[in-house]
Amino acid sequence: VNAEIVAIGSELLTPYFQDTNSLFLTEKLNEIGVEVAFKTIVGDNRRNLTQAAQTALARAEIVLFMGGLGPTEDDLTRECVAEALGREIHRDPEMIAALYKMFAERRRRMSPNNEKQAEVIDGAVVLKNNFGTAPGQWLETEFEDRQRYVMLLPGPPYELKPMFEEQCLPRLRKHVSQRFIARRTLRIVMMAESECDARVSPIYKAAEGVETTILATGGEIQLHFRSKAETQEIAEERVEELAVKIEEELGDFVYSRGEPLEDIVGLLLQLKDSTLAIAESCTGGMLGSRLTQFSGSSRYFLGGAIVYSNDLKTLFANVPPMMIAEHGAVSAEVAQALAEGVREECQASYGLAITGVAGPTGGTEEKPVGLVYCALADEHETAVVERRFPGDRERIRRFATQQALDMLRRKLINS
Amino acid sequence: VNAEIVAIGSELLTPYFQDTNSLFLTEKLNEIGVEVAFKTIVGDNRRNLTQAAQTALARAEIVLFMGGLGPTEDDLTRECVAEALGREIHRDPEMIAALYKMFAERRRRMSPNNEKQAEVIDGAVVLKNNFGTAPGQWLETEFEDRQRYVMLLPGPPYELKPMFEEQCLPRLRKHVSQRFIARRTLRIVMMAESECDARVSPIYKAAEGVETTILATGGEIQLHFRSKAETQEIAEERVEELAVKIEEELGDFVYSRGEPLEDIVGLLLQLKDSTLAIAESCTGGMLGSRLTQFSGSSRYFLGGAIVYSNDLKTLFANVPPMMIAEHGAVSAEVAQALAEGVREECQASYGLAITGVAGPTGGTEEKPVGLVYCALADEHETAVVERRFPGDRERIRRFATQQALDMLRRKLINS
Repeated sequence: VNAEIVAIGSELLTPYFQDTNSLFLTEKLNEIGVEVAFKTIVGDNRRNLTQAAQTALARAEIVLFMGGLGPTEDDLTRECVAEALGREIHRDPEMIAALYKMFAERRRRMSPNNEKQAEVIDGAVVLKNNFGTAPGQWLETEFEDRQRYVMLLPGPPYELKPMFEEQCLPRLRKHVSQRFIARRTLRIVMMAESECDARVSPIYKAAEGVETTILATGGEIQLHFRSKAETQEIAEERVEELAVKIEEELGDFVYSRGEPLEDIVGLLLQLKDSTLAIAESCTGGMLGSRLTQFSGSSRYFLGGAIVYSNDLKTLFANVPPMMIAEHGAVSAEVAQALAEGVREECQASYGLAITGVAGPTGGTEEKPVGLVYCALADEHETAVVERRFPGDRERIRRFATQQALDMLRRKLINS
Repeated sequence: VNAEIVAIGSELLTPYFQDTNSLFLTEKLNEIGVEVAFKTIVGDNRRNLTQAAQTALARAEIVLFMGGLGPTEDDLTRECVAEALGREIHRDPEMIAALYKMFAERRRRMSPNNEKQAEVIDGAVVLKNNFGTAPGQWLETEFEDRQRYVMLLPGPPYELKPMFEEQCLPRLRKHVSQRFIARRTLRIVMMAESECDARVSPIYKAAEGVETTILATGGEIQLHFRSKAETQEIAEERVEELAVKIEEELGDFVYSRGEPLEDIVGLLLQLKDSTLAIAESCTGGMLGSRLTQFSGSSRYFLGGAIVYSNDLKTLFANVPPMMIAEHGAVSAEVAQALAEGVREECQASYGLAITGVAGPTGGTEEKPVGLVYCALADEHETAVVERRFPGDRERIRRFATQQALDMLRRKLINS
C-alpha cells in the first residue's frame, strides 16, 4: 500500500522553511507496512493546491494533507481537497460551538474568522484537535473508482502528531493488510563517522534481509536497521542479530537502542539513586534544557548555575577569582573548580561543568574557537576532558553538551 | 515563471533524510524572479519517477530534477525523464572517454557500469561536473505544446551547487524576463494568530502587488511580504509601505524586521547599558540557551540559576522555604521572589524568572499543565504575569521563554 504526503504552505516554498512532519508520518506509516511513494510540497494557492490534491488522489491509496487548516483566508486545504474530490463543504454547528467554548475557557475573545475552521468536507469524520483550534478530517472515499483514505491534518507538529497517532493510525490499521516490519536503532556517542563506518560496514553489509541507514549529527551517530519478512519473528530475529553483532563491535560507544542521551543519563542517575547539579558557561543553559526535556527529571536533576560571567563563576560555584585570572575562564582548572563548586553548593552526588569558546568571536591562538573543557566531580575525584570541536557556534555548543553527558554516562556505567 | 523541483532518491522517503538542496535552488531561482510552485520527492522507482516527471512537466515551465544520475541500477533519472518527454537516450562516446580519463587521473580503475553516466537525452546539452563523475543535463524543449526548461542535476550538494550556479543560472537568465524582488519580514510576539490575522488581513489584502505569507510558531507570528516589479525601487516601495502600515496597526506587538527576539532583547539591554540575570525552573536552561545563542551576549547577560529543585530556589535566589511551602513552587509569589533574588545575588540591572508546570505530568486542578508565571524585577519594582499555555512540554517551555523575553523587551522599550 502506497501513501503520498502533501505538505501545504507557501513558507515551505521559500528558502527558509522545511517540512519536518513528513519524517514523523513516514516512520509511523512504515510501522504499519505502508510505504511513502511521493511527497509533494505546494503553496497556499488555490489552483496549485487543487492540482496537487488531484495528482495525489490519482496515484496513492493513502493521501495525507497537512497544513492550511487555520482560520485565515490563506487556509485553503479544506476547500481545495473538497474540490479535487468533487464534494461539498458544510459548516458544522457543533464544532462552531466547541470553538467558542474553547476560546472562552482560555479567556480569550474569538474572532468570527475562526468559524472557518468548522468547515467539514461532506462525508468526512472530524478529528478532534486537543492542542489547537483547527480540527482534522478523515475521509474514506473513492477516487476514479479506486478506494482512497484521505486525512487532513494541522501543520503544527504538536497538533499533528497526537492527532495522527491517536485518531488516524487506528483507522488505517483496520484497512491496511499487515506486513511485518522489525526495526532496531543503535545510538552511538562521540565517535568519528568514518571510524564507525569502517568498523560496522563489513558487518551490516553481510547481514541478509536487513536495510541499514546511517545518520550522523553533532557528536552522535544513529544506525537504523529495518527488515521486512513474512512473519514478525523472522524480521525481529534478523534485526536483533545484526544489532547484537554491532553492539559487540562498538562496545560502550553504543549508548542506547533509541532513547536520547539525556534520557539514558537520567535513567542511570535514578538507578544509582544519585543527583546532579551543573554549571554551564559557553552552553548558557543548553545542557540544563536538554536534561529537563522530560517530565520527571526533577527526581535526579537539582538544577545548577549558568555562569556566563566570571563573577557568577565565583558567586555560584566558588571558583577563586585568582584562578580565573591566572588560567583564564576557559581552562581545565576552572572547569574542575566549577564542577566541584556547584556539586558542593547544591549538595548533589555529581557536579558537571562546561566551559569553552563557542565562537565565532572570542578565539585566540592559545584558546581557539571550539576549545571546550568538561569536568565531572563526585565526592572522591574530578575528571576533566579537553576537546576541540569543529563547526559553528550551535554545533560546538551541542558537541559540548554531548561530551558532558557522555562523561557522566561512562562514569555511571563504570561505577 | 514557475518552477518545480523534483528530488529523487528512496532515502528521501525514509524517516531519516531530508532534501536540503531545494532550499538553495529556491533562493537562487527567486533571485532571478522565478517562483517555486511545487516540490516533489520521489524514490528510485521507474513507474513513480516517470509519473512524477510527467506531472512536473505538465504544470511547471522550469523543471529541475536532482539525484539519480549515478552509475548504479537504481539511478533512473535519465531514462525516466527521457520517457516522460518521449525522447530517446544515446551514449555519448566523448563522455565515455572523459570518464575513463577522469578515473585514470585519480589512479582508479573504472568499472564498466560507470558508462551509464554517459547517457544523454537526445537534444540535451551536457553539464560538466567538476566535483564528481555524474554529468548534468540541460534541455530546452516543448511539452504538450508549451515551452519547457529542464535540468538534470546530481544529488550531492557540493556537485549540484556549482553546476547550477555556473551552468544553469546563466542559461535561465537568458530565457526568464528579469523581474526585481523585494522582501520584508515582520516578527510579532505573544499574539493569537486569529487576532493578528483579523487585524492585518484587511491591510495586506488591499496592498497591490505584494504577496503575504503568515507563519505562526509557539508565541510568535512572522509576516513575510514579497513584491515583484519592473524595477527594484517599485518593489521596495510596495513592501515598505505595507510593512509600515502593519507596524502602525499592531504597534509594539511587532518586535523586529527579522532578528529573533533574543537578539532584540540583547540589543536593547546594550543600548540601556543594562545587565540581566535569570532564574529558570520549568524551562531548565532554555531561556539561558536562547540568550546565549549569539556571540557577544556576555556584554549584557551575566548568567543565572537553574532552580529546578526547591532547595536551589532558596540557595541561589534566596526564596524563603516558607513561601514555597505556602504558595507552591509554581506561584506568583515564588516567581517574584526568584526574579528579585537572582537580580540581587548577581547584581544585575534586571532579574527575569520563570516557574511553571510544563507537563505532561505534575499538573493539578488548581495548577494545571501549562500554567506559567514569569516575573521581571528591576531596582524599583517587580512585574508578574500569569499565563496558561497550550501544547506539549516542549511548546509550553518555548512559550514560557517567549513570554519572559517579551516582558523584558516591553520594559526596555518603555523605560
